[in-house]
Amino acid sequence: MSPPLAPPSGSRDFLPRELRRRERALARVARTFALHGFEPVGTPAFERIETLSGKYGEEGDKLIFRILRRGPRAATGEADLALRYDLTVPGARVYAHRRGELPRIFKRYQIGPVWRGERPGKGRFREFTQCDADIFGAESRLADVAVVLALAAALDALGVRGATVRLNSRAVLAAAMEAYGVPAALRAGALTSLDKLDRIGVDGVAEELRARGVGEDAAEALRRDMGGGEFAAALRRRLAGSAEGAAGLAEVDMVLDRAAPRLAGGARIVFDPTLARGLDYYTGPIFEFAAAGGGASIAGGGRYDDLCGQFVKDRVPVCGGSLGIERILSLLEADGAEGEPRVYVAVWDGEAEGRALDLAAEIRAVGVAAETDLTGGRLGRQFKTADERGCRFVVVEGPDERAAGAVALKDLADGSQSLAPRETVAATLAERLAGAPARRAGGGDGRTEG
Amino acid sequence: MSPPLAPPSGSRDFLPRELRRRERALARVARTFALHGFEPVGTPAFERIETLSGKYGEEGDKLIFRILRRGPRAATGEADLALRYDLTVPGARVYAHRRGELPRIFKRYQIGPVWRGERPGKGRFREFTQCDADIFGAESRLADVAVVLALAAALDALGVRGATVRLNSRAVLAAAMEAYGVPAALRAGALTSLDKLDRIGVDGVAEELRARGVGEDAAEALRRDMGGGEFAAALRRRLAGSAEGAAGLAEVDMVLDRAAPRLAGGARIVFDPTLARGLDYYTGPIFEFAAAGGGASIAGGGRYDDLCGQFVKDRVPVCGGSLGIERILSLLEADGAEGEPRVYVAVWDGEAEGRALDLAAEIRAVGVAAETDLTGGRLGRQFKTADERGCRFVVVEGPDERAAGAVALKDLADGSQSLAPRETVAATLAERLAGAPARRAGGGDGRTEG
Repeated sequence: MSPPLAPPSGSRDFLPRELRRRERALARVARTFALHGFEPVGTPAFERIETLSGKYGEEGDKLIFRILRRGPRAATGEADLALRYDLTVPGARVYAHRRGELPRIFKRYQIGPVWRGERPGKGRFREFTQCDADIFGAESRLADVAVVLALAAALDALGVRGATVRLNSRAVLAAAMEAYGVPAALRAGALTSLDKLDRIGVDGVAEELRARGVGEDAAEALRRDMGGGEFAAALRRRLAGSAEGAAGLAEVDMVLDRAAPRLAGGARIVFDPTLARGLDYYTGPIFEFAAAGGGASIAGGGRYDDLCGQFVKDRVPVCGGSLGIERILSLLEADGAEGEPRVYVAVWDGEAEGRALDLAAEIRAVGVAAETDLTGGRLGRQFKTADERGCRFVVVEGPDERAAGAVALKDLADGSQSLAPRETVAATLAERLAGAPARRAGGGDGRTEG
Repeated sequence: MSPPLAPPSGSRDFLPRELRRRERALARVARTFALHGFEPVGTPAFERIETLSGKYGEEGDKLIFRILRRGPRAATGEADLALRYDLTVPGARVYAHRRGELPRIFKRYQIGPVWRGERPGKGRFREFTQCDADIFGAESRLADVAVVLALAAALDALGVRGATVRLNSRAVLAAAMEAYGVPAALRAGALTSLDKLDRIGVDGVAEELRARGVGEDAAEALRRDMGGGEFAAALRRRLAGSAEGAAGLAEVDMVLDRAAPRLAGGARIVFDPTLARGLDYYTGPIFEFAAAGGGASIAGGGRYDDLCGQFVKDRVPVCGGSLGIERILSLLEADGAEGEPRVYVAVWDGEAEGRALDLAAEIRAVGVAAETDLTGGRLGRQFKTADERGCRFVVVEGPDERAAGAVALKDLADGSQSLAPRETVAATLAERLAGAPARRAGGGDGRTEG
């Protein structure tokens, strides 16, 4: 009758080694964002359902985890709250709510889990972490540049090199739809098809466009331009006469010009007029980072000047981006996120418990992790436990050592044993462990290490 | 039609100053637990409903946030998942699931939010953070001692001094109920009343006991013993003939003996036979930390040797405890959790944007936080924005400075201005900011600071 022991579908437990690895990566991202002048903000795991509704498109809406009312109203089956689907909408809400306390230009980052009821798969989870950096209140294209540079720097800090940033603009997309003669009602769908160019190819896109009811002329013109290998250039020519197109291209060019020479980690940035990005709320420049060698997006974002307007009456210019930290972690080699080296203070017998506790406290006081034996067993078993727990050193104060004012000290890394004066053993350990590499425990991959 | 901007009832947004304060406190707790040999574990925000059901008593069960099924089954109004109510039950589940990968004695800590649908009030939230440290697989009373010492050390690291640890044992409670002649069926309720002694006094407890149907003799004997000011001593006498009582008192005395001389932060520990603790799963020693000057519990825990048995077939001895970090943060003075000092790189004009971006990157490369202007406005407005954003320095490279190979450097803390060679300005800033205190921005309390 006991429930399954695995975490719910699409969610994960993290044992120490993996959790340390994640936390180190997230700390690097946070540090990078802070270096770029972003400040941390936190929001609850849940929001009112009406805060999230209508922000993510029809498909997104279906994936929201809804929370039942509590108390007597639980029986109605009604939901009033929902787990946050991203950090963007909660960020806009909190900015709208608290902007009287914030500088007019507010640069925020937020790192935390979000929840989406997607079908779980390789690298796709229902609970996953996002790392967002956003700039509220800045109209300037330099804000878009600042977001792109901060994301590139965060990737670099994580060890991801050679990413490609695909850059486009919603204005370019709108003008392109106009220029190719795609009817207004079909444009959103047409952009979704365009966005698939990488996956389904030129002919696939043209076919989808026709299936959506886009006229033969438009579909064929798009097919030809895209197929020529120089879609960006072809589109620039087509947009020559369009004011909206010119404005869109100007913002693309400005971001390219400022960002290209300054991207960290050897990233490059290119104008890609097929980039559409799924979410409804973008209004200006949009971008996506692809890892070197192609593949899935590892970061993305854009300008969304109208989202805050759903919370407050005036328009608030905002741009921001998000790192796909789950994909990034899966791309990076699983480096050893060992814990710090630890000292195991063995307990000679029941009467020695107090002295062992005191010795452990002394060792901690010099900044070295220490634990006392909890097996209550023979010394041999205690050494085995220390090893299994991944401790680096074992110290024992037996009767002989005690009489000599010393403790026995065993280094489990090389098996060497020595005596150290009881008075200075904490300092001795601190010295020997300074800069010492951590040690893997004997056990399996998930086993804790010292 | 826009939804309310405040976070849902009982939940909170955190602006930078408050979030930094929280994160620093949590980092101190994590560091203390790690020093004591505990390792981090993470579990999802939600669990299967059946994992949580029946673990928290009838009252607790009502407070669990339940999540509706997704997709077509959403319409049924049925829930399949629930937000975690504490970190103890998920911790037991993950230990049961993964113990093949873990050392036999596993010391874990977990820090993260939990959710309870309580009526929100002063210091009581529906989303709040717990900091748990638990030891799996250790029968020894030294494990209970280790948990108490680690919690005391964490409180000390947070700046909480002079706490009182109330210690009791479930065995003592069971033997006491027997000794006073409380009928078995009424014991759980009687313990709940006993637990209120601090709040409702001796007569209040006796009255509640009578109302629960506890016999007059038992209620009166308890009233007399509790009222004498030496309840612990009176109870020790009453338990003289009880084997269960002797065993319970022995474990209490062992923990007192080992922990009392070694509690950090000037904490003291006392045997308090009225301590019951609400949760169902405790089986051995239990304890609660009260802040100096009395008041609410700021930490607590105990041994729960039967909880893992609900997930696996064998019995797994476990003891652990949890810090009430929300109450602790509200007790501590709101120290200034200023951000690091930041440099604002002003932009002379559109043509100077690239050079400003380069200068900001150079400053970051020496570890100093830097941002470029995003107002695109006149220099005066840029200085005002830098001040509002809490930046400590503004640097400008105007045409005159550029011709001289220099930049102008203004310290917003004292208004002083100077010229610095362009080549070395990053190093100059790093030097001037080394150890410099952060600076509050001009604005209100929530305003970001540099």
